[in-house]
Amino acid sequence: MLLERVNSPDQLKQLPVEELPKLAEEIRRFLIESLSKTGGHLASNLGVVELTIALHYLFDSPRDKLLWDVGHQAYVHKILTGRRELFPTLRQYKGLCGFPKMRESAHDCWETGHSSTSLSGAMGMATARDLKGEDYKVIAVIGDGALTGGMALEALNHIGETKKDLMIVLNDNEMSISPNVGALHNHLGRLRTNKSYNKMKAEVEQLLKKIPTVGVPFAKTLERIKDSFKYLLVSGVFFETLGFTYLGPVDGHKLDELMESLRMAGQTKGPVVVHVVTRKGYGYEPAENDSVVYHGVGTYKIESGAFQKKAGGAPAYPAVFGDTLVRLAEEDERIVAITPAMLTGSKLEKFCEKFPERCFDVGIAEQHAVTFAAGLATQGLKPVLAIYSTFLQRGYDQFIHDVCRQKLPVVFAVDRAGFVGEDGETHQGVYDISYLRNQPGMVIMMPKDENELQHMLYTAVQYDKGPVAVRYSKAAGVGVPMDEEFKLIPIGKSEEVRPGTDVALLAFGTMVQTALEAAGLLEEKGINARVINARFAKPLDRELLDRLADEKIPIITLEEACIEGGFGSAVLEYFAAWEISDIRIKILGVPDYYVEHGSIREQLEEVGLTPEQIADTVNTFLSQKIQKA
Amino acid sequence: MLLERVNSPDQLKQLPVEELPKLAEEIRRFLIESLSKTGGHLASNLGVVELTIALHYLFDSPRDKLLWDVGHQAYVHKILTGRRELFPTLRQYKGLCGFPKMRESAHDCWETGHSSTSLSGAMGMATARDLKGEDYKVIAVIGDGALTGGMALEALNHIGETKKDLMIVLNDNEMSISPNVGALHNHLGRLRTNKSYNKMKAEVEQLLKKIPTVGVPFAKTLERIKDSFKYLLVSGVFFETLGFTYLGPVDGHKLDELMESLRMAGQTKGPVVVHVVTRKGYGYEPAENDSVVYHGVGTYKIESGAFQKKAGGAPAYPAVFGDTLVRLAEEDERIVAITPAMLTGSKLEKFCEKFPERCFDVGIAEQHAVTFAAGLATQGLKPVLAIYSTFLQRGYDQFIHDVCRQKLPVVFAVDRAGFVGEDGETHQGVYDISYLRNQPGMVIMMPKDENELQHMLYTAVQYDKGPVAVRYSKAAGVGVPMDEEFKLIPIGKSEEVRPGTDVALLAFGTMVQTALEAAGLLEEKGINARVINARFAKPLDRELLDRLADEKIPIITLEEACIEGGFGSAVLEYFAAWEISDIRIKILGVPDYYVEHGSIREQLEEVGLTPEQIADTVNTFLSQKIQKA
Repeated sequence: MLLERVNSPDQLKQLPVEELPKLAEEIRRFLIESLSKTGGHLASNLGVVELTIALHYLFDSPRDKLLWDVGHQAYVHKILTGRRELFPTLRQYKGLCGFPKMRESAHDCWETGHSSTSLSGAMGMATARDLKGEDYKVIAVIGDGALTGGMALEALNHIGETKKDLMIVLNDNEMSISPNVGALHNHLGRLRTNKSYNKMKAEVEQLLKKIPTVGVPFAKTLERIKDSFKYLLVSGVFFETLGFTYLGPVDGHKLDELMESLRMAGQTKGPVVVHVVTRKGYGYEPAENDSVVYHGVGTYKIESGAFQKKAGGAPAYPAVFGDTLVRLAEEDERIVAITPAMLTGSKLEKFCEKFPERCFDVGIAEQHAVTFAAGLATQGLKPVLAIYSTFLQRGYDQFIHDVCRQKLPVVFAVDRAGFVGEDGETHQGVYDISYLRNQPGMVIMMPKDENELQHMLYTAVQYDKGPVAVRYSKAAGVGVPMDEEFKLIPIGKSEEVRPGTDVALLAFGTMVQTALEAAGLLEEKGINARVINARFAKPLDRELLDRLADEKIPIITLEEACIEGGFGSAVLEYFAAWEISDIRIKILGVPDYYVEHGSIREQLEEVGLTPEQIADTVNTFLSQKIQKA
Repeated sequence: MLLERVNSPDQLKQLPVEELPKLAEEIRRFLIESLSKTGGHLASNLGVVELTIALHYLFDSPRDKLLWDVGHQAYVHKILTGRRELFPTLRQYKGLCGFPKMRESAHDCWETGHSSTSLSGAMGMATARDLKGEDYKVIAVIGDGALTGGMALEALNHIGETKKDLMIVLNDNEMSISPNVGALHNHLGRLRTNKSYNKMKAEVEQLLKKIPTVGVPFAKTLERIKDSFKYLLVSGVFFETLGFTYLGPVDGHKLDELMESLRMAGQTKGPVVVHVVTRKGYGYEPAENDSVVYHGVGTYKIESGAFQKKAGGAPAYPAVFGDTLVRLAEEDERIVAITPAMLTGSKLEKFCEKFPERCFDVGIAEQHAVTFAAGLATQGLKPVLAIYSTFLQRGYDQFIHDVCRQKLPVVFAVDRAGFVGEDGETHQGVYDISYLRNQPGMVIMMPKDENELQHMLYTAVQYDKGPVAVRYSKAAGVGVPMDEEFKLIPIGKSEEVRPGTDVALLAFGTMVQTALEAAGLLEEKGINARVINARFAKPLDRELLDRLADEKIPIITLEEACIEGGFGSAVLEYFAAWEISDIRIKILGVPDYYVEHGSIREQLEEVGLTPEQIADTVNTFLSQKIQKA
């Protein structure tokens, strides 16, 4: 095995170039086997095996800086930089991170998880290098999907203008997470299909030679025609317009071609793009055939690619969202759905199939997605934007400036709210309550179970006064039966789900079920806990809060979100506003640090949000009270 | 006066086309005169007089939708839609808004203030129109500066792909707010300078006719060359690559040319761009000569363009920032400055002049600005990003994902924090504390006066453990003397600025001075108020809070920011975390609605944050306490 001898880029460089294809084959085999046991981002990593080898073979990491856009394609990089043996722990609690991680290796110079950041990061590094008079290469590897993100375009613009020495490897794999859309993509598509690039170019050059070049106006014209080759032909109109040298397209699975292009790029002054065409899932048939399904996988059988079946349980919240939206849309033709490149993740396939003209995948373009929704809402439609909590951060100003300030009834289906498990800290959906609730008129709900999710979605699309966010976990629901008919939930009204007199557990969303379990445990200790399903983080149920204050019952708020500025914080503000100070209250939620990858259960446990831990906390809280009295 | 007869687009349409230039002249005169008394966005509006007339003459607002990107160029639109007589109240409290405002007129179909949103909004409207089977035009007017904003590029991509009927008027005025940068701009620049477009095109067409077209490969080649004209010549490579029909460039001050192009665009199927070249400040020499200075103006003398001098007072915070940064950078070569197209507004001119290679105006590209700063910081530089509070919302995910999560020492100079006066609700800098403080490790400061601002900036650039935000008002400072030497402010340490025993006014930033004045007023009523300069919204001064809790002194927190999730909320969370409930506390800040334009003083008064109002509130608060006891 070559692979066992390659635990660093230096060792890689010892291999003769003829052995690299064999190494690629071994890495591919290793990935397929290792990920079959742990799950992970399979297709994207199989696509960049040769590319990663070539980059590490030709360049000098960590001196040269390699930035992996999104970062879910950095497994081969991790293998080649001494982390192969950690792969059995991939994406597991305290194990190898699924994304680049500075503390894992000096070769990880830039952390990611979200898309389209690498060009700005690279531009920063290259600028710092030049200011400090240093001399190293900065290389960003970015996919064609990530390139449609506005910030990548902003960065291209800046890079092109300043003519920095900087290399962009455009990893053109014909799809980002769900089938790519957008005119820019079409442009790339045209480049790809033009297979006779060199032939064409030669032909046109011949043609041009036949044109008389005498006479000043003519000569000038000719000069411009020559210039136009670059526009006319395959060669990256877009990039060249922006001031880049463009190389490619090159077959990303042919190491010799790849190395040649990258070597040439390495010698180019100024910004250079190497357009590399790769295939997601390359070398593993099931993944090649369906790279959407094999983008992020659980465990699977290697021979067939069949996924290990999970024990059938309650449906996950995103699936309930997807099914409910179809039912709602059947009855209400104002409803349209928008996704920023997360059609599959957000479970919008059924909707899209049934209502193709009412479903908009705008690509990786969260800013546009939010304001596009605002535009739709101005004309009486009811846009439902399905967006992960952590990606809505990308459209924050648009949320404030275009949606909330204009009081437009856009429904935000805030998916992946709370802990997300294996994707870890870049994807934790724990900030949304805090960043959404500072907007006047905003409505923020989270259901206690999957049945309530459908009623909340129904309520949200009925609500016409302004924006609504329904946040929900990526996890499985509680397993409750689903009502056949939709019910309107009164805005700002909570629900008592368990009576009790010793303490009130005021729980938001997923924490309701946890609180009920905690209450059961407390019961055993003789503590009679009331559990309230808060339902709304905004507006708060003021009647409830007044009642609790009157009772002087101790209160514990519970949320799967950051404590700073969250739901519990809102409750505190309410009491402060009414100068209610003679009440005991404790806020439980995600504390002030970044919670890394692991299972959701492990993440909850780490921050003290399991039923057992909450029961303990409540018990201590109450016994201190007794001491105090 | 034609102008007096034109109070609606219908009345405009009654005028014979020959009279329109005269109308333009009258509007220009009206703007120059009216704004000389009120101030406002002068240069941008003088630039679009003919364009606005042409649009309203040819199209049918409010049936057809007109979206004004940024919105600071909508004065002519307001004049032509019946709001001329309100101009004496422009940007004043309860007066005419400086931006489009739906409640002012049915002709305002889209509200703005921030840049680059119009294309997404227009795409939403056009999509809704088509889904509903309606038939009207959607027209977005966007400047060349706004076009570099990532979200505009995201929208162009989506529009191009879907081929919606939608018109974009590219108002190319050769500069946005400060001199534009970026490769995309250079591209536009090339278009502009190519004056012989039609001549060129004719020449090349002639040339092509001479080429033999027999033989299949040749014919194909020819086909491609023909195609390449569009790339080769002036005609909007970029837009056409993305699937737009491109018309122009056309002189935006020649009504006949303009009308012809717009009419043609109105008849075009699919997305169309009309490239209109205008001149900011056109027709008013002082503004034409310096459109940066005349972008947003105060009152001025018409003849000379001279601004009315304000009584010399304390320097405004942004000016102190600009001067301080120069001094800091002289001593510390790690310091670099970044601005997203706000060089002048952020007072970075001196810095840029002195350290041109360390100053980066990245254009309207807030997302890139933040992550570019992160990239610089990874390599040991000390980037200072000067950014308005309300525009930092555009880079929120980048702040979280790229800066905070990577613990990079980026300094955010959060300008225009708190109320901003005349620009009104789209520009109020009242959300930053709440959206910044949910990030682990974040440091957030605000100075009590301009002298403390320089020390805070010094402290921020010395701090190496992670990101720091120094937020400051756009207003004049307090008028205190400036220390000659910089002082380090201990992170998380407050300062008592007035002793007192009856109540503690825990004030953040600008509210310290207000609290001191309120304390003076309370003194007269026999109430002895302590005033504390909190300095930090994160980390809080825990020792102070513990001490206050021990004393059981009533606490009032004060901030020029939204109450939801703000500084006061952080204080409440701290007490809740330590189960300190036997304390009286009240949170004063900006309540939960959008505060519109007016003077800062009027805005403070509206929300009860003047010294007099605070003194009254404190008095009531304390007397209730006495009643209660």
